[in-house]
Formats: sequence, C-alpha cells, structure tokens
Amino acid sequence: MTKTYTAEHVEKLIADFQLPQSPNNLYAPISYILSLGGKRVRSVVALQVANCIGLDERSAQKLALAIELFHNFTLVHDDIMDRADTRRGQITVHKKWNENIGILSGDAMLIEVYKTFLELDNTNTTALLKRFNHIGTLVCEGQQYDMDFESDADVSEADYLEMIRLKTAVLLGFSMESAALLMGDNALAKQLYHIGECIGMSFQIKDDLLDAFPEGDGFGKQVGGDILAGKKTLLYLSALHHANEVDKSQLNKIYSANTRNDSDVQLVKDIMLKYQVPSKVSKVAEDYQKQVETSLKSIQHEALKSFLFDFSNQLLSRKV
Amino acid sequence: MTKTYTAEHVEKLIADFQLPQSPNNLYAPISYILSLGGKRVRSVVALQVANCIGLDERSAQKLALAIELFHNFTLVHDDIMDRADTRRGQITVHKKWNENIGILSGDAMLIEVYKTFLELDNTNTTALLKRFNHIGTLVCEGQQYDMDFESDADVSEADYLEMIRLKTAVLLGFSMESAALLMGDNALAKQLYHIGECIGMSFQIKDDLLDAFPEGDGFGKQVGGDILAGKKTLLYLSALHHANEVDKSQLNKIYSANTRNDSDVQLVKDIMLKYQVPSKVSKVAEDYQKQVETSLKSIQHEALKSFLFDFSNQLLSRKV
Repeated sequence: MTKTYTAEHVEKLIADFQLPQSPNNLYAPISYILSLGGKRVRSVVALQVANCIGLDERSAQKLALAIELFHNFTLVHDDIMDRADTRRGQITVHKKWNENIGILSGDAMLIEVYKTFLELDNTNTTALLKRFNHIGTLVCEGQQYDMDFESDADVSEADYLEMIRLKTAVLLGFSMESAALLMGDNALAKQLYHIGECIGMSFQIKDDLLDAFPEGDGFGKQVGGDILAGKKTLLYLSALHHANEVDKSQLNKIYSANTRNDSDVQLVKDIMLKYQVPSKVSKVAEDYQKQVETSLKSIQHEALKSFLFDFSNQLLSRKV
Repeated sequence: MTKTYTAEHVEKLIADFQLPQSPNNLYAPISYILSLGGKRVRSVVALQVANCIGLDERSAQKLALAIELFHNFTLVHDDIMDRADTRRGQITVHKKWNENIGILSGDAMLIEVYKTFLELDNTNTTALLKRFNHIGTLVCEGQQYDMDFESDADVSEADYLEMIRLKTAVLLGFSMESAALLMGDNALAKQLYHIGECIGMSFQIKDDLLDAFPEGDGFGKQVGGDILAGKKTLLYLSALHHANEVDKSQLNKIYSANTRNDSDVQLVKDIMLKYQVPSKVSKVAEDYQKQVETSLKSIQHEALKSFLFDFSNQLLSRKV
C-alpha cells in the first residue's frame, strides 16, 4: 500500500533531528534555517520514491533528512553570497547573526549531511555517498557560474541552461534517484535521475517565465521582479540573442544601470514580446517536460509512475 | 623497512591531485591554497604512522591528502572569519579573489575531502568517515568558541584549553589515528588519538608562550604579537586569573583598547612575569607532554614508538 508524503512528514523529521546545545552560535542557526519551512520538494520526493520502490522507512527518512540538510546548507551560504536579507519571508541567518556565523554553521551543516547519510549503514551507502559528492560538487559549480555570469557579458542561453542544471536540477535528480541507488537498482536510478533533472530544468525555466509573464491575473504578485533586480534569466538572454542592435543596446543599458524602475520593466517586457521571447522560453520548458513524459513511459512500477506523473504535472502546471 | 616521510611527500600528493579546470573561480583558489606549502605536519604524521603499522601506500596517501584538504578548507574559511590578509606570507584566498569565492571554494574543498576518503574502498571506510565527521564537527565548534571568546568577558583557562583542543588538537589526534582506524585496530587508534591530541595541546600552549616569551634570542621574531593583536591566549587568561584588582583592570584596559603599542606589550609582559604566568603556562604544556611520554610507553610497535618519540620531541622542543 503506497503512502502519500507531504511537507508535514519532513517537518516531523526536522523536529526529531537532534543537535547539541553548545556552542549555541553554531547550532541555533542550523535549527533556525531548518525551521523556516518551505515546500520541502526534494525531501518529499525522496520519501515518496523510496516508499514506492520499497525502501524501508528508516532509510528513507535518513535520505530525506540528508537532502533537506544539504539544500538548507546551500541556502545559508548562497544567502551570504547573494547579500540576501530575507529567506521565506524571514531574516536570513547571516543577518540574524553575522556572516562568520553563517559561514561556520553552514560548514557544520554540511558535515551533518554526511553524518546523516552514514547513519544508513547500508551496503550501498558508499556508492550513494560517491554519487552525492559528485552532485554536491556540481551544485557548487552551478553557484560559481551563477556568480560569474553577473559580470560576464558573454553568457549564452546554453551557458545559462547549464548553470541552472548544475545549481538546481541535479539536486532534484539526486532526490529522485537516491532510494534506488541505496537499493542497488542503478538502472532505475538512472531513469529517475533523468526525470528529476528534466523536471528541475522545466520548473526553473517556467519560474523565470512566470516571474515576468504570469498566466491569469498573477494573484497580485510583483510582476517582473527578476527584471527589476537585473537578473540575467533565460528571458533576458533570449531577448539579447534575438534583438536588433537598437533593442539590444536598450536592454544592455537598462541592465547595466544600478537600479531599474517599473517603466524599465515594461520596456524590457515589450522588447521580449516583440521577439516572441515568452513563447521561445516556454518552448524550452516544454521540451524538458516532454522528456519527462517520454521517460515516464519506461517506468515499469505503476505506483511510482503514477506519483511521478502527478508530481511533475503539479509542479509544472502552476500559473504564477 | 620503515620509510621516513617529509613535507615533500605531501607536496607530491598535492601536485598529483587533479581538479577540473572550470569554473576557474571555484577550482583555482583550491589549487592556490594547497600550493602555499607549510609544514604539512598532519599529513606527514598520517603517512608515517600508516607506514609504521603496515597500511598500504595508496591508502596512506588518500588519508594524508584528505586530511591536508580538510585542514586547508578550514584555513580558507577561517581566514575569511578572521579577516586575515595573509597566510604563510602570501595573500589569502578571499583577498586574492573575494569572500564569495572563498566561501564557495571552501565548500567545494570540503566535498573533495569526502571524495578522497571514499577513494579508499576499504571495509573500514565508513567507520573512518563517521569518526572524521565527529572530528570535523569538533573543529567547527572550536572555531565558534574562538570567535565567541573574543567578545566574552568570562572565559576561563579551562574554556580556553577546551577551545584549542577542539580547534587544533583533535585534528592532530585524527591524523595520528586514521591509519589504525582504517586497519580496524581500534585499540591502537585510541592510543594514537590520545597521543596526537596531547601533542597538539602541548604544541599550541607552547606556541602561545613562545610568542610572548621566546627562549634564547628569539631569532629576531616579533615578540608579543599575540598581545599586540589583543589575542586572549592562555597567558592572558592566566594573568587575569591571578592578578590583583589593580593589575587586572590594567590588563582589561589594554586589551579592550582598539590597538596596543610596544609599551603596552611590555606592561602586559611585566604583569605576566609578576604572577609567574610563563612558568604556570609552561607547566600546563609540560603536563600534556608528560601524558604523551606515559602513553608512548604502552605502544608496542618499536618503529611507531620511535617515530612518535622523535616527532613529539621535535615539535615540542622548539625555542621560538
């Protein structure tokens, strides 16, 4: 009988996760970032896939917790690098404490990831860890490319796609494959990884698209926040690629300014629409979604296939 | 036949250590920090102990490299936290690149540590990794206590000793024990860990002592650098503990100022001498050294005992 997992299951795992009391400045930030909630997509996926394919509950929980710890470790360090003041509507770790504490508690958290994986005591733990190390390195590379791209005038759409693959999609791929790796089913792991990576790509691209061009009424969300922030998303790179010289220099001018206002956002959006950027970017996302659909056909396990189908539809069907 | 290892063996391991080329801003800082040299004490110890007790050369090299990578990871992040401009006479990573790159390349380096350990493919790898995770956490705790103590007026000598144990000594303990752990000789590992930790404690305490009170002519080294920097070492805490109210407030006044000059250094040293602080602190270091000597007696393996004897004498006999 397949159980259905939600973020609440992950909240329970996090509530049960024990950390020492002292030094408080090292451990309180870890408890704090973990308490901020969120959709817990990666860990829910790991739990659900594990349940579908018959991994024992205890091991599934260790996997989910390790993945959630790693994801939150990247958030703490990324927020320092991005000078972010808030995370999920709450003050970030390095703002609540300070940057040194953010660096060090992040480091301690990365070690907690490995501790959690090593509680698995499974014959395939080392294989899983080797794979995780590879994924972890890719995530670091993605974050570095993201930072490099801020000052790099020559970023192609392919470069951008590779950056989001590394920074975001590979970890969703790992969340999908981890239970199968632990059970030694490497063929299934490969299929699941590919599905997870493609969902991650499609999700991230659609995320960029909806930021500037929400479908429906947008539910009052700030439209064009990425443009306002001067973020070089796929939309911007696609516009730059297709625009004539006049529009290109207009884009460059707006993006190289220190700040942008609402009329800049409208100007950029007009240029994007002029070159059919939203439909071009939407097409890229859909291509990844099609890869997911094709890959799903080769999944034999019915409960797993059904979950993956629902999960990808749910994640990729949002309008804002 | 026992081989003798030096820093040059470690330099060779580092030269052979392969990293990807791209993103350059992620990997060049790792190569850079590894290239800065140093005594390579931890990794030389790991190599030498491994050789003495018969661990295969390849495994010994992986251990040594992983330990050196971890130590250098802590240097990169600590230098950011300590706002250090130079390391081993060269510019620090976050000054040569920037803080974000320092944070991220440090993170990538910590993952490289685990990659290197996992190349061991030994039945005891997971036991070794669990132990390493424990040690790594202690090192983070030590760094946090060190930072906390800067603004904490109530640090005792026992607190300080516990801080240096965590920040410094436990990693030397691990370097000593790692080969035995990998060979499954947990009893020997325990002995070796204790010897390493005690040598680390004695070394660090003597380091503090020699900074202010070098033996012999001091070889032209800046005397009292720690006092000048306002560092609350064991000497300072011991002086504060034993001083009368007048001298205590004098110490507090000097250490709470933004900067100190040479006459402040002399004043502090005079107070320390008045309360026999150098001999008190020297006694603490000697007590750890005696523990080393006692523990050495129970080491059965002659080549190992001989190395440990020479190593501890060499490390602890320096005058400046």
